[in-house]
Amino acid sequence: MSTLLDELRTAVGDGAVLVDADVTESYRRDMMPLAPHGAPLAVVLPKAATEVQAVVRACAAAGVPIVPRGAGSGLSGAANAIEGCVVLAMTKMNEIVEIDADNRLAVVQPGVVNLDLRGAVEKHGLFYPPDPSSYDWCTIGGNLSTNAGGLCCVKYGVTTDSVLGLEVVLADGELLKTGRRTVKGVAGYDLTKLFIGSEGTLGVITQATLALRPLPQAPGTMVAAFSAVETAGEAVSRIVREGIVPSLMEIMDATSIAAVEAHLKTELGAGAGCAALLICQSDSGGEAARQELRAIEQVCEDVGADLVHSTFDLAEGQMLLAARRAVLTALEVYGAWMTDDVCVPRTRIAELIAACERIAAEVRLRVAVVGHAGDGNMHPTIVYDPTSEDEFARATVAFNDILAVGLALGGTVTGEHGIGKIKRDWLEKEIGPIAMRTHRAIKAALDPDNVFNPGSMFSMPT
Amino acid sequence: MSTLLDELRTAVGDGAVLVDADVTESYRRDMMPLAPHGAPLAVVLPKAATEVQAVVRACAAAGVPIVPRGAGSGLSGAANAIEGCVVLAMTKMNEIVEIDADNRLAVVQPGVVNLDLRGAVEKHGLFYPPDPSSYDWCTIGGNLSTNAGGLCCVKYGVTTDSVLGLEVVLADGELLKTGRRTVKGVAGYDLTKLFIGSEGTLGVITQATLALRPLPQAPGTMVAAFSAVETAGEAVSRIVREGIVPSLMEIMDATSIAAVEAHLKTELGAGAGCAALLICQSDSGGEAARQELRAIEQVCEDVGADLVHSTFDLAEGQMLLAARRAVLTALEVYGAWMTDDVCVPRTRIAELIAACERIAAEVRLRVAVVGHAGDGNMHPTIVYDPTSEDEFARATVAFNDILAVGLALGGTVTGEHGIGKIKRDWLEKEIGPIAMRTHRAIKAALDPDNVFNPGSMFSMPT
Repeated sequence: MSTLLDELRTAVGDGAVLVDADVTESYRRDMMPLAPHGAPLAVVLPKAATEVQAVVRACAAAGVPIVPRGAGSGLSGAANAIEGCVVLAMTKMNEIVEIDADNRLAVVQPGVVNLDLRGAVEKHGLFYPPDPSSYDWCTIGGNLSTNAGGLCCVKYGVTTDSVLGLEVVLADGELLKTGRRTVKGVAGYDLTKLFIGSEGTLGVITQATLALRPLPQAPGTMVAAFSAVETAGEAVSRIVREGIVPSLMEIMDATSIAAVEAHLKTELGAGAGCAALLICQSDSGGEAARQELRAIEQVCEDVGADLVHSTFDLAEGQMLLAARRAVLTALEVYGAWMTDDVCVPRTRIAELIAACERIAAEVRLRVAVVGHAGDGNMHPTIVYDPTSEDEFARATVAFNDILAVGLALGGTVTGEHGIGKIKRDWLEKEIGPIAMRTHRAIKAALDPDNVFNPGSMFSMPT
Repeated sequence: MSTLLDELRTAVGDGAVLVDADVTESYRRDMMPLAPHGAPLAVVLPKAATEVQAVVRACAAAGVPIVPRGAGSGLSGAANAIEGCVVLAMTKMNEIVEIDADNRLAVVQPGVVNLDLRGAVEKHGLFYPPDPSSYDWCTIGGNLSTNAGGLCCVKYGVTTDSVLGLEVVLADGELLKTGRRTVKGVAGYDLTKLFIGSEGTLGVITQATLALRPLPQAPGTMVAAFSAVETAGEAVSRIVREGIVPSLMEIMDATSIAAVEAHLKTELGAGAGCAALLICQSDSGGEAARQELRAIEQVCEDVGADLVHSTFDLAEGQMLLAARRAVLTALEVYGAWMTDDVCVPRTRIAELIAACERIAAEVRLRVAVVGHAGDGNMHPTIVYDPTSEDEFARATVAFNDILAVGLALGGTVTGEHGIGKIKRDWLEKEIGPIAMRTHRAIKAALDPDNVFNPGSMFSMPT
């Protein structure tokens, strides 16, 4: 292997090849405790696509697998190291190459942090919608590889909806350009969207052309409290049914609310007996926003909300959003967390939350449910004592039971986090043998020697 | 071949296998005169996915290619018959299987006519956006296979943006299910979007789950007339730059305007010396729509429009839209038409139109430019005498010259019509050898015996 390390150092420079176990330790895993992770042979930090090409060629020739990664904010272990692999950390390729405001697009390298891109385009009056919860530290490359979602999706879609084209280093080291710079285009297969969400198993994204939107208006915010989860679910269904499209619609269950109130030492105004909070925003501006929030309020009142409150005060709106975003941090008081990611039809949200309550009782652990109600994408989060093997085992049982419930409700085992190294069995359960065979055929066609992230998402026959 | 015909008759019933040349004639080609078309062995009209599976298995075993088709409204020859093939006409599979209004989705068979779906979901207060110009007779299956666009795209995107999942019969006759019924989902590769736009080269779509939107408000319409194409192009750029998102933004050049005025025997109000008309709509409703149209008017006035007029009278708005939609029909007075389909960055529209004027002079033919200005997707349409070989040859030269201009302006050779059998060389010019190799690898992985639409979009090595 010393030959490979030499080649890697030639490719990217000595300082960009990390081999000290103390240093590489922080590149071994993402944020999902369930996922296995090995020790890499080396962590390589390329600064250009040509360097990535050289690294891929060297690893392919040596038969050493490559695991591409961004910041490591993932929640499926997709970016976790495989024993003896080369981790290709894309964080040094963090240049915003171009912002073309007149054509509403940006060209970026994969290591750009989501928040940095948001800030840069905002100066041009533009908006990059995808906003995963880790938006202040996750990278665009990771967002592309997982087809990340976020709070914006109910109005603005997921990452794939904002991408015009990619540059990708293929398994043979060639640089593939997909897509275009124009708004529309149907020249050939949609390779762009094939690579998006492929979790580093088909190639290494080295550049992306992203579609931008006009900057929305400052949002107005509505919060509603419900004494029963069913009523909150009914409100979500009716809002969808009535054709209201808020720019954000989040739900928090009683466990989430209690954790956040304790953590932030504040009352969310939910009051005793509150089973669920619904937080909605409209960014339509002016009278349109007032009408949208009023229509949402009306639905909440009609189904029997205990409290309905709207505000156009930005600080108050941000406080409510901050409370929603603080759920995982707030839960850390009680132990480690393991967050799930099921997406169900929007009419089934209440059933999912009820099932999570049942599962929590069965495994005798705290399960907080928080999620993107407008999409049916829920994140039931299990809290456990990380020093207790027994609690970890019970948390794992709950994690899988929740996935089974999601599937049974007509949903998917992952709305936005991905399959990675933790849901491979569930992928097969969800999509079945013919779709698995199709996946393997595509993987074999594009990466015949299984160089990229082998065994992640699914395994190949040996 | 009599064995294959017997098997086809067993698969779909005697009456659904057409072999009489007089009958199969109308299934040989689409609406693009440039595209080659052969005589099929048979036209088969399946009524169920199981029948499609049997047909695919029989054809694959016999080594006879399959060309899937919908209504035949295509403009690239993708659905044109290959000599000796089986044409799989999906028009009898035209059932709207389900409309789930609460989850805003519809499940449809591929033969459903776009307009029929629009009407059916409208009864539930819902909206299926993709609206290709042939929406009153094209089918959803054809829309999916070409990733069709339309007038709605500037606000609502193209077909792929409205699809949640597919059922597809693969080359081995197995039925693949892709995607999901939920709003979000990242379980595995995005196979749904790989099949969309693949022009019948990877499988036969037998069912689709489509995402619906709330029905928009009745639109307000603005029309502006410009004495120079450059000024109209500047208006489009500024509207985009200012973050206004109309629900429609169409442009017509002087040739298009004259043809329509002669055809409809009406004045469009453009007046003498009008070089371009811009037609915009807002479907945001009420004050929001008024503000959007007023902002667009302001831009048009600022850049020097000769005339600006807005109306919320539905009949008047529909008349203006009807004029826009009448361009191709209006041109038939002068001869046959051959419509092109380039998409350029929105800042380059005026340059494209100017280039088309130059090309028209060079080939001494009428070239009318009409298109979706909000997306930069232009349809320069060449008019020629179909009985003159010389004019047809000059029209073909113009057709290709326009594509070259589109590429040179940073655009694509097809915004929404597809590659089909007429732009195969241009596909390679646009995407290059590495992307071509990637296409062929995927095609070989999914259709190893090249059963589906061989030679369309690109050829495979023999």
